Amino acid sequence: MNQQILLKNRPVGEPKESDFALVETPIPEPGEGEVLNRTIYLSLDPYMRGRMSDRESYATPVELGNVMLGATVSQVIKSNHPQFSAGDFVLGYDGWQAYGISKGKTLRKLDPNQAPISYALGITGMPGMTAYFALLDIGQPQSGETVVVSAASGAVGSVAGQIAKIKNCRAVGIAGSDEKCDYVVKELGFDACIDRKTQDLNSSLKDLCPKGIDVYFDNTSGPILEAVLQNINLGARIPLVGLISQYNAENLPPGPNLMPLLIKRALIKGFLVGDYQNRQAEFVKDVSQWLREGKLKYKEDVVEGLKNAPHAFIGLLQGKNFGKLIVKVSDDPTR
Amino acid sequence: MNQQILLKNRPVGEPKESDFALVETPIPEPGEGEVLNRTIYLSLDPYMRGRMSDRESYATPVELGNVMLGATVSQVIKSNHPQFSAGDFVLGYDGWQAYGISKGKTLRKLDPNQAPISYALGITGMPGMTAYFALLDIGQPQSGETVVVSAASGAVGSVAGQIAKIKNCRAVGIAGSDEKCDYVVKELGFDACIDRKTQDLNSSLKDLCPKGIDVYFDNTSGPILEAVLQNINLGARIPLVGLISQYNAENLPPGPNLMPLLIKRALIKGFLVGDYQNRQAEFVKDVSQWLREGKLKYKEDVVEGLKNAPHAFIGLLQGKNFGKLIVKVSDDPTR
Repeated sequence: MNQQILLKNRPVGEPKESDFALVETPIPEPGEGEVLNRTIYLSLDPYMRGRMSDRESYATPVELGNVMLGATVSQVIKSNHPQFSAGDFVLGYDGWQAYGISKGKTLRKLDPNQAPISYALGITGMPGMTAYFALLDIGQPQSGETVVVSAASGAVGSVAGQIAKIKNCRAVGIAGSDEKCDYVVKELGFDACIDRKTQDLNSSLKDLCPKGIDVYFDNTSGPILEAVLQNINLGARIPLVGLISQYNAENLPPGPNLMPLLIKRALIKGFLVGDYQNRQAEFVKDVSQWLREGKLKYKEDVVEGLKNAPHAFIGLLQGKNFGKLIVKVSDDPTR
Repeated sequence: MNQQILLKNRPVGEPKESDFALVETPIPEPGEGEVLNRTIYLSLDPYMRGRMSDRESYATPVELGNVMLGATVSQVIKSNHPQFSAGDFVLGYDGWQAYGISKGKTLRKLDPNQAPISYALGITGMPGMTAYFALLDIGQPQSGETVVVSAASGAVGSVAGQIAKIKNCRAVGIAGSDEKCDYVVKELGFDACIDRKTQDLNSSLKDLCPKGIDVYFDNTSGPILEAVLQNINLGARIPLVGLISQYNAENLPPGPNLMPLLIKRALIKGFLVGDYQNRQAEFVKDVSQWLREGKLKYKEDVVEGLKNAPHAFIGLLQGKNFGKLIVKVSDDPTR
């Protein structure tokens, strides 16, 4: 039998476990040009909260009663597509279920000898690519500049800050606990990190960014963006990558006052990684090399079992994960 | 004797006439390299409100007891500078006073045969240049796109919308009265105009921008920006030129929620015309030609007498002016 987690209710505010339903259904048969996959890893990402609501977003919401969507790393069980054979490892978009049917053209084959297959959900996948292009294309960090990154221990922020260091910038992270800050500085090599739960953002930013802030990699919006705007430099660049601080908000809260943007001739620009698909090769080339050279470090937060996905996802929106959150749905034969 | 208007108190909220003091002082003598000017026209502009407060801005505030600052068109009375002679008309920065001393290098000579000399405070001066570069450089309007302009009958907005039309865009203005809207559409040639005092912004923008908003020329921030963000297109550009809506605010009010920026991969970028000084020639060339061809129209709101400047300035921040607000301080021998 297949296990599936469906969207049962549109959450009001924070999602609850009762907004999801775990059901068992027969394992489906792949049709012409299709592939049947066994899910090994399911990615959990903050953007999924947006798809649970029906207000306007950059993508259509999940229908009530449908399987929750998400990127997956799987092994092919049965293939009716010439490019895939049983046993292949693939990156797909099968969602929160143990088995999925994909059209072959939506899958990407993974080589387990190149990197752990789960990395395709994180550092070598969409989160890594988000960090890479939002930082380099919109942020345009110059050697010697100061780059601030929110959600700095997360899947995207951790990569953005490390790339800032590779580009010879001062990297200052903001994270949600002492332990995360320790990791960001000692393991990832950021120059400093602010614990947003115990430290005053404005004065900490002033202290830790004595030359002001040139790039703010914004995963959160909200109070962190407000504090950053008080400390931005002339011509600063702010890639707006996420608004984690308000994904659970029932009404869109007001944003920061924009006076500092005018005074400092700075820019905020919204970013979606989907717009950069045609430039994936640049990303893969650089990130693969940096991983080989040990310049990029990567941490996964692995939750065991599909049934625990709702609980883990709710925690993700509260910042409880530590590293890229993935669900191990079935055995990984490569490790 | 010289008449001067000094900053007497830092206003809290809306400036009051009692925040200014009119004094008489001896007419000063120009020193080495200096020029004595008789002020003919004084420009009144919203940015002056910022200089009356001592909170951080892009420029240092006016000191209490000092003459209020401002751009002026004057006639040279006495010159100790080789490039100027008595009788010359000049654009300078002598502020709210009947006579001013300038260093010669800060003055620009005006040719009364080319355009009315007062235009140097408006359409061929800083306000016109603001409209030109903020729209073209940040807004980058493409033929067929929709451009929305707030404060559309004002010195900057009126030029921005007309340039949008020259660039074959749909231009939709937002102004503060029926009469202004009439002017914006019938005289300036915008396609439509919303009276922000009587019409619902969000639904009017939806109606009048059926293909969405590609460029928003933002003179105001506040509720207009909020409504525009609900209607922006993918990849929209928002030059942030002014925050008139909050210049009188005692504390910086919250701004709009930035979710639409992310969803639509749009950008907001702060703009100050001072950054474009080295590109003035482009502006002068285009605008002079458009004026000659009748493609640009220009309206001045002339207040008689320096003593009426505080009252007129207070009205400017309330949107009571109609066209570029200037104070006629003394006779204009060219008209």
